Amino acid sequence: MSKVQANSFGGIRTRREFLYRTAAIGGLGLTMATMNAWGMSEPSRADRPPELTGSGKGKKVLILGAGLAGMTAAYELGKLGYECQLIEARSFAGGRCQTARRGFELTELGGEKQVCQFDEGEYINHGPWRIPYNHRSTLHYTREFGVPLEVFINDNDAAYVYHEKTAGALSGKRLRQGEIKADMRGHVAELLAKGVQTGKLDEQLTEEDKVLLLDYLANEGYLSKGDLKYLGTGGRGYKVNPGAGVNPGPGTPSDPLGFKALLGSKLGKIYKSVNSFTQQATMFQPVGGMDQIAKAFAKRVGKSIRYNTEVLAIRQNKQVVSAQIKDSATGKISLVEADFCLCTIPLSVLRNIDTDFSAPFKEAIAAVAYEPTGKIGIQMKRRFWEEDDAIYGGHIRTNFKGIGSISLPSNHWQGQKGTLLGYYNFMADAVEVSAMSPAQRAEFATAAGEKIFPQYRENVEKTFSVAWHRVKYNMGGWADWSVESRKNAYPVLLEAEGRVYLAGEHMSYLTGWMAGAIESSWQQMAKLHARALVA
Amino acid sequence: MSKVQANSFGGIRTRREFLYRTAAIGGLGLTMATMNAWGMSEPSRADRPPELTGSGKGKKVLILGAGLAGMTAAYELGKLGYECQLIEARSFAGGRCQTARRGFELTELGGEKQVCQFDEGEYINHGPWRIPYNHRSTLHYTREFGVPLEVFINDNDAAYVYHEKTAGALSGKRLRQGEIKADMRGHVAELLAKGVQTGKLDEQLTEEDKVLLLDYLANEGYLSKGDLKYLGTGGRGYKVNPGAGVNPGPGTPSDPLGFKALLGSKLGKIYKSVNSFTQQATMFQPVGGMDQIAKAFAKRVGKSIRYNTEVLAIRQNKQVVSAQIKDSATGKISLVEADFCLCTIPLSVLRNIDTDFSAPFKEAIAAVAYEPTGKIGIQMKRRFWEEDDAIYGGHIRTNFKGIGSISLPSNHWQGQKGTLLGYYNFMADAVEVSAMSPAQRAEFATAAGEKIFPQYRENVEKTFSVAWHRVKYNMGGWADWSVESRKNAYPVLLEAEGRVYLAGEHMSYLTGWMAGAIESSWQQMAKLHARALVA
Repeated sequence: MSKVQANSFGGIRTRREFLYRTAAIGGLGLTMATMNAWGMSEPSRADRPPELTGSGKGKKVLILGAGLAGMTAAYELGKLGYECQLIEARSFAGGRCQTARRGFELTELGGEKQVCQFDEGEYINHGPWRIPYNHRSTLHYTREFGVPLEVFINDNDAAYVYHEKTAGALSGKRLRQGEIKADMRGHVAELLAKGVQTGKLDEQLTEEDKVLLLDYLANEGYLSKGDLKYLGTGGRGYKVNPGAGVNPGPGTPSDPLGFKALLGSKLGKIYKSVNSFTQQATMFQPVGGMDQIAKAFAKRVGKSIRYNTEVLAIRQNKQVVSAQIKDSATGKISLVEADFCLCTIPLSVLRNIDTDFSAPFKEAIAAVAYEPTGKIGIQMKRRFWEEDDAIYGGHIRTNFKGIGSISLPSNHWQGQKGTLLGYYNFMADAVEVSAMSPAQRAEFATAAGEKIFPQYRENVEKTFSVAWHRVKYNMGGWADWSVESRKNAYPVLLEAEGRVYLAGEHMSYLTGWMAGAIESSWQQMAKLHARALVA
Repeated sequence: MSKVQANSFGGIRTRREFLYRTAAIGGLGLTMATMNAWGMSEPSRADRPPELTGSGKGKKVLILGAGLAGMTAAYELGKLGYECQLIEARSFAGGRCQTARRGFELTELGGEKQVCQFDEGEYINHGPWRIPYNHRSTLHYTREFGVPLEVFINDNDAAYVYHEKTAGALSGKRLRQGEIKADMRGHVAELLAKGVQTGKLDEQLTEEDKVLLLDYLANEGYLSKGDLKYLGTGGRGYKVNPGAGVNPGPGTPSDPLGFKALLGSKLGKIYKSVNSFTQQATMFQPVGGMDQIAKAFAKRVGKSIRYNTEVLAIRQNKQVVSAQIKDSATGKISLVEADFCLCTIPLSVLRNIDTDFSAPFKEAIAAVAYEPTGKIGIQMKRRFWEEDDAIYGGHIRTNFKGIGSISLPSNHWQGQKGTLLGYYNFMADAVEVSAMSPAQRAEFATAAGEKIFPQYRENVEKTFSVAWHRVKYNMGGWADWSVESRKNAYPVLLEAEGRVYLAGEHMSYLTGWMAGAIESSWQQMAKLHARALVA
């Protein structure tokens, strides 16, 4: 399973795609039942907020957590006249939508304090880091708020693949992704063409189909005319690139990798026919860091945010919902009250907060696992991957345990320095790596990187790492729904618990994505508003 | 043949790839012979200028044409102490490296004057428009000169394909490229998997190979486990996208296109295993227009450029080379002299200049065809392709005669307006369209665009078109070498004609690309310098 094909922030594609399809097909009965319970029959629009009418004037909404879900609700409900108050444990807004740059501080649970020492202008998006074009809810707000975007390079055929300790001749070889794609697809096209030509697949194809299929295969696989053999192609790269004059002139073609070596290596599994839905280009990142989105929200709703304030307890009765809160600086404990509460606290944290939720609701909260995940940003003295290797952005794919991929920055093209992502790990690997000190993690990442780039170690300048499952107010990267919990706990948590509504990436099928937080917030605020109008 | 898969500036991939390979393999004898004649045995470095030693002090070089080839030579030879004088027919430097923005003027031969009326900030790169990552010579100068780059989106699976009047059910249907890729590759994977499973291809595969191949096919083609059928995938898009709650929740899957319909449509030929070499991401464009590169050169060598000056004649003897030149404003004719001349004038123009070149050299010049090609930039009131269709950059692929592709801008993401490329045509199509007036071309492009986007016509605001074969100082997009002319004329033109050296994209295998101009200049200046040192 390719870790690069994870969601923006983690979450593994293949499993999620499976869940999508399972739920979409197998779970239709459940879906319809819950839809009817809501009185909704149209799918929610994901490209803009719900069009709500009626006033929220005179009504108070207590929003727990000033991440994207919380601030989305404050922003939209504020337009309707609601008085929103946001309670935020951190000293800044955005939740996981963070960017580590010079001065950014992080102390993991049981860990030592890290203060980011990157140069001015350098940063790592250690939370969400990419916005696919089809996350229209996220792009709705970047457009509405005028947050400048730049392209995030998620696919780069020029980027290396390096798998070690695998079967066959390609183990420990530094290859470019395009070499593998061109050769594997070329060989497969040749194989199928041969089968078609020799009448092996006659029963399935008409004569006309055969002609069309051979034409397709020859084109896709760069097969030679006539004998339909794959002999390599310029698209896999040259030994010497084409250029001027006669030397290099047309360049020197490169030799394809052998079919058997490729099959044995299993490297063909680094790509698919098309990327999975959330991994598709065009992808974006805000210029200057992902937290520009958080800041754009905070600029609009920041006055309603009470920072450095932890939620200790939640209580409600038929009239009111209240939260017991604690000022982290003074230790002072107080009570805030409202008509409704939108709780965006991760379930991994909420499960340890004292509430008077019903037993089934509490059980549902406790049933949801959160994904351990870690990242490390490494500021490099020099952009050697661009200068020496001609790789501009994208992911270096490895099979190194605890490393996964090394991702090259899509900003500051051709600049002096650059900050890359040295690892992006998940689950047991993430837990293991997170047990290391920050310095040990840096060494772990460096030792991996220098296997691929000899220039790696000498260029490492500053590092900053995070293990989200050890971050106090997150306790994990994102909700990691099992088939079981999605079936049993999810519908329970989507319903209001008295005057309390849950929202966040966890209440969506876009877990780990900012779009999940925003769209969940849109959906839950609409339910809250419908209720408030008749309350 | 996909016109989008043309070079940066035109030039058709498939034919060029063929030529590369032909020359690389078949033409080796010739290549070696010419290499020896040069006394060169190493291929030229394409990532930086040749490392030249020795002084050019006291020597004059007359450079005809202040395009990228001419300015590259002036910049590098200037470092060695040569006194370079550039003669430029236009009022600005850069040659074809132009950007049309507000106030830019163009009068084609026999055509009416166009003055670009785009809004401030909007522009079209009507000459070269993209820099692939492997054009390291171009990227050498953007880095050295600090020209800021942004990503040019050359691949976008979300972009539409629209073929009309073709066979079968998909004619006249607006599809996304990713739908075609996912479905065609999925069906083909299923077909091959079936052949493998039923023992049809036994003789070619071992049992172990079969297992590995099936695993690969299932992964690449998103085949269902067990029966290895292709039933669609999230990667081809959803009917309703996944989102929050249970509605849309996991989303509603979309249905794949049928294999037979796809085969019959031939739409599978819009893509290949990997893009051809020059079409590969990561691609770039300078922020603010391609002419930022020309301006960066001109900033460094501009003082040596004599603008608005046409070359009427070239003469030489054993001591000196001279050019008769004409000041376009005053009509005054004068003579300039130098020790050597680097002539970067396109062969299509040079062939009509009075020279005392030898008969074989003149014949060689006359033997090279130039490609007719045209583009139109259309400023749109609104970025409807982003806002309504969620397409961010890339090419809309059509089979409309004279249109080819419609290319969406990779700048000003989510801005108010945007300037797209309404057509990019070649050869006979380009000649035909270029016979229209600018207004007729605009209508021609609009009528095509509105077949695909109903929002097209109402958003057309300003247009600017160019037909390069009708531009006085170019007479074509780029040198269009035939197998014959590459074999016979090319080696002749690469040799010095007395004291005159030719340089430009035409003297390379990267015709139509800026890299061709730069690398040719590097190569020819090195020869000139070697000669000057012993002269």
